[in-house]
Amino acid sequence: MLEEIQLQQVLPQEIEKRSFEIITEELGNVELDPLQAPIIKRAIHTSADFDYLKNLTFSELAVEQFHTAIKNGACIVTDTQMAKSGINKKELAKYGGEVYCFMSDDDVAEIAKKQGSTRAVASMEKACMLDKPLIFAIGNAPTALVRLYELIDEGKLHPCGIIGVPVGFVNVVEAKELIMRTPVPYIVARGRKGGSNIAAAICNALLYELRDMEK
Amino acid sequence: MLEEIQLQQVLPQEIEKRSFEIITEELGNVELDPLQAPIIKRAIHTSADFDYLKNLTFSELAVEQFHTAIKNGACIVTDTQMAKSGINKKELAKYGGEVYCFMSDDDVAEIAKKQGSTRAVASMEKACMLDKPLIFAIGNAPTALVRLYELIDEGKLHPCGIIGVPVGFVNVVEAKELIMRTPVPYIVARGRKGGSNIAAAICNALLYELRDMEK
Repeated sequence: MLEEIQLQQVLPQEIEKRSFEIITEELGNVELDPLQAPIIKRAIHTSADFDYLKNLTFSELAVEQFHTAIKNGACIVTDTQMAKSGINKKELAKYGGEVYCFMSDDDVAEIAKKQGSTRAVASMEKACMLDKPLIFAIGNAPTALVRLYELIDEGKLHPCGIIGVPVGFVNVVEAKELIMRTPVPYIVARGRKGGSNIAAAICNALLYELRDMEK
Repeated sequence: MLEEIQLQQVLPQEIEKRSFEIITEELGNVELDPLQAPIIKRAIHTSADFDYLKNLTFSELAVEQFHTAIKNGACIVTDTQMAKSGINKKELAKYGGEVYCFMSDDDVAEIAKKQGSTRAVASMEKACMLDKPLIFAIGNAPTALVRLYELIDEGKLHPCGIIGVPVGFVNVVEAKELIMRTPVPYIVARGRKGGSNIAAAICNALLYELRDMEK
């Protein structure tokens, strides 16, 4: 005979709250910076992977600086349509910001081909042309992070912040370490893990913190 | 002095290939079913999380049945715009299939509110009206899986397959176990892990396997 499967009775609007309570319970007595905690918890929420407690790394005052950038109307540039689709664009628009992803643009594909680089590299270069305060949210392509590092190093790009959470096996670890050597505020998932879902979750956590502070 | 960061020189078009080689190396001597292997590896590729080796569970002949469904023009219904955006719609279109996500539809929001259910539940009910062969790819909402289970149990829905990989902490484990009790072919990530990225990765792995078989 099959064992009975018991579903918890949780109201739809309570599911997210209950999930965060479970995450908080399971984190136990870990002491988290109060501004970093919602970001770490949302990364865990979106992956059910508690590794993000250890691998998420913040530059000094990063969260404050990301919040200031968003309040000043910063736009977010991502390296995947998935991350773009996951970011809460309505919340960002409250401050005047928009989300851009140039990965599927024809000119980006063309330039990448001509340069022998990746579309991610070409789309970072395209973002460089935007005359707006920018936050980069990179969940996929380490080559995007490497190009951002170079552009910053050459003085051609001055982003407000970088969310550096590409996932993968080739140059991912290294690209993240490069970003941590820039003077730009960063939130980085050290190691191999990350993804478009993590990039979007971090953007949303920043936005929801701002919203809750303004309540 | 800072330690030198060494980037590997890998051609853009070789990065994915090299990543899969690394995954294969690190999996070592694990014996994988040859049809399941590309799916497991792509889930690991998209998350850098080797847990998917253990948690991905396939009903008997699942991969063959998903392939047949796709070749017969099955459409894919997802529970997030992120998953929809991550699925290779061009590959699917080769066989006549499309990807649907009803989560942002006004009528879905309205029905969910009226019923006191989730938009995921209402969007599964909307999908039920489609007169097409359907594969469900659920990466977020366990309530979607529970509703699918009920609709199948009541004889109102006959999907070709279910990719059941929602992520989370409330009823996620249980909802996946329910799906594994249906007669429908399934690919399920047992436990808490999963996500829109995993749902899209599994769909794409199925599509790329088909493409490679036809070469």
